[in-house]
Amino acid sequence: MSNNASLSEFSLIHDYLTGLGATRQDVVLDIGDDCALTAIPPGYELAFSIDTLVSGVHFFPDCNPQALGHKSLAVGLSDLAAVGAMPAWATLALTLPESDSIWLKSFATGIHELSLKHGLRVVGGDLTRGPLTISIQVMGLVRTGMAVRRSGAKPGDLILVTGVLGDAGLALRHLLACKKQNIIATDLDPELRQRLEWPQPRVQFGCSLPGIASAAIDISDGLVADLGHLLTQSACGANIELAHIPLSSQVSAVVNQEFDWTIPLCSGDDYELCFTIPEVHLQKVQKSAHESCCQATVIGHITETTGIRLKQSNGKVITAGNKIAATPGFDHFSSH
Amino acid sequence: MSNNASLSEFSLIHDYLTGLGATRQDVVLDIGDDCALTAIPPGYELAFSIDTLVSGVHFFPDCNPQALGHKSLAVGLSDLAAVGAMPAWATLALTLPESDSIWLKSFATGIHELSLKHGLRVVGGDLTRGPLTISIQVMGLVRTGMAVRRSGAKPGDLILVTGVLGDAGLALRHLLACKKQNIIATDLDPELRQRLEWPQPRVQFGCSLPGIASAAIDISDGLVADLGHLLTQSACGANIELAHIPLSSQVSAVVNQEFDWTIPLCSGDDYELCFTIPEVHLQKVQKSAHESCCQATVIGHITETTGIRLKQSNGKVITAGNKIAATPGFDHFSSH
Repeated sequence: MSNNASLSEFSLIHDYLTGLGATRQDVVLDIGDDCALTAIPPGYELAFSIDTLVSGVHFFPDCNPQALGHKSLAVGLSDLAAVGAMPAWATLALTLPESDSIWLKSFATGIHELSLKHGLRVVGGDLTRGPLTISIQVMGLVRTGMAVRRSGAKPGDLILVTGVLGDAGLALRHLLACKKQNIIATDLDPELRQRLEWPQPRVQFGCSLPGIASAAIDISDGLVADLGHLLTQSACGANIELAHIPLSSQVSAVVNQEFDWTIPLCSGDDYELCFTIPEVHLQKVQKSAHESCCQATVIGHITETTGIRLKQSNGKVITAGNKIAATPGFDHFSSH
Repeated sequence: MSNNASLSEFSLIHDYLTGLGATRQDVVLDIGDDCALTAIPPGYELAFSIDTLVSGVHFFPDCNPQALGHKSLAVGLSDLAAVGAMPAWATLALTLPESDSIWLKSFATGIHELSLKHGLRVVGGDLTRGPLTISIQVMGLVRTGMAVRRSGAKPGDLILVTGVLGDAGLALRHLLACKKQNIIATDLDPELRQRLEWPQPRVQFGCSLPGIASAAIDISDGLVADLGHLLTQSACGANIELAHIPLSSQVSAVVNQEFDWTIPLCSGDDYELCFTIPEVHLQKVQKSAHESCCQATVIGHITETTGIRLKQSNGKVITAGNKIAATPGFDHFSSH
């Protein structure tokens, strides 16, 4: 009921939460003062986003702490990628039930390694005692006036997504089914597990989108929900070709066996980008995708008529399959 | 186990967490996209800090939600004040056990009103389900190279504090005693309750310190602990005159009755500033304090010899009273 910090808490901060990520010349004052201080280069705007992961809600309490550290930061990096900002700094607010130095070291390693990869520095932290909760604010830089927003899509624009969709959702479905039956999920496909636990935000590719993409969003709540947000803010609609949606062989098999698109369209945790471009920019996008070692697939186009129409390969249009309609993401979209 | 957002969650964000605080011309993209975007004026650095409040750890679960909103932001504003930065923007990560719109409206009002008072805009938010936890990152602007740090104190500098110390600690002690006996604390002095539940960060006064103060810190964990951090980072020590420490009549009465300085020296939640100045700046500080309607009191001076020496009015020096030594803050300090 007071925020007195214990000696052990300070030691933990000092030992594990200091010096995470890349060294950056623009960090004027690093972790350990009342505030961090950073210099913003002229001609840039600051982009930032905060996300929270809660134990038992966003991750299993017994999950690998290094993967959790990685994912906690990846979620924010994916937001920066969606607006086309280069990652710069982050702050971490970590609430832990107990001072577990092995856990904390592993968690910090997950954050450190992903930060290093993207040239980001963790410049501030707050460690408190309580139910396991992680809030990370990421900050990035984007040239003034060049950030990609959700609101810029225009009728005729192509709609693209990076990577493949639904792998994390399929992995989660499997893990939840195992938990329910109290069995250990030893048979989960390692590729799918990787996609759920170690998402790779599309940072490099996202940074290529300013000046090319008319709108973008990251897919964290499923394509239908997130494309829905983009369409709502752009005041338009979309025709999507289901046959063009990029799927892994595992997800493709499930869709074909179950005649159900819920996993690739409505499950969360993809951390891919969905974006729109005037068709004239397609070649540039393909070049950037190649350079970023990231697939970018045209899945449809923007329409003046609002709503999302999912076209099957036989030409029939799915308006709302039962399972799809039952997901919160789809509900949200269909409410507009 | 997924971060799918439900319809009600989105509605709550939209209804209550949008448009909090002042309108600012430098907000390029407000809440509701993947990132917020802001413009940094040339000649300024970005100062930022993240803090978390956890239910049952930092506040009583049944506390007034408007006061909680106020305090959650006040904690961060106090950090900005300590470096001399003007508040600009904040992001809010709120984890709530249930969608309680009455609670959320009141909480948001607490944040909104304090934001308005200090010209700050809440430009980003994340609402998740889980144990009640609040993380707020505040961002402010300070002229390049002018931020006040913890590390600049020099031997001979005067040590000052704003306001009076220990009111919040005394209020908390009373509330905890009542909770223990299962009685409602109807007899708590309203002034003390105000100081615990509605702390007023020294924002305006803090902004006057760049160029004047050699070092500063906000007092959130008790004077001894926080002054200890400042001294450690400045590699010096302090002589403090106990008789000069500014106390309310209520705290003064407790100190005199109990012969114990624990409450004003070691209890948390004061959110006053402790800072050091070369003596030549005393008049300027007094002028700023007057303009900010905030008391600033000289309580001692910086010494070359490390450690804090608390001098009684009879000339005797307290090295460590039993109760003081038992507090985590003092332990931390004395470990250096």
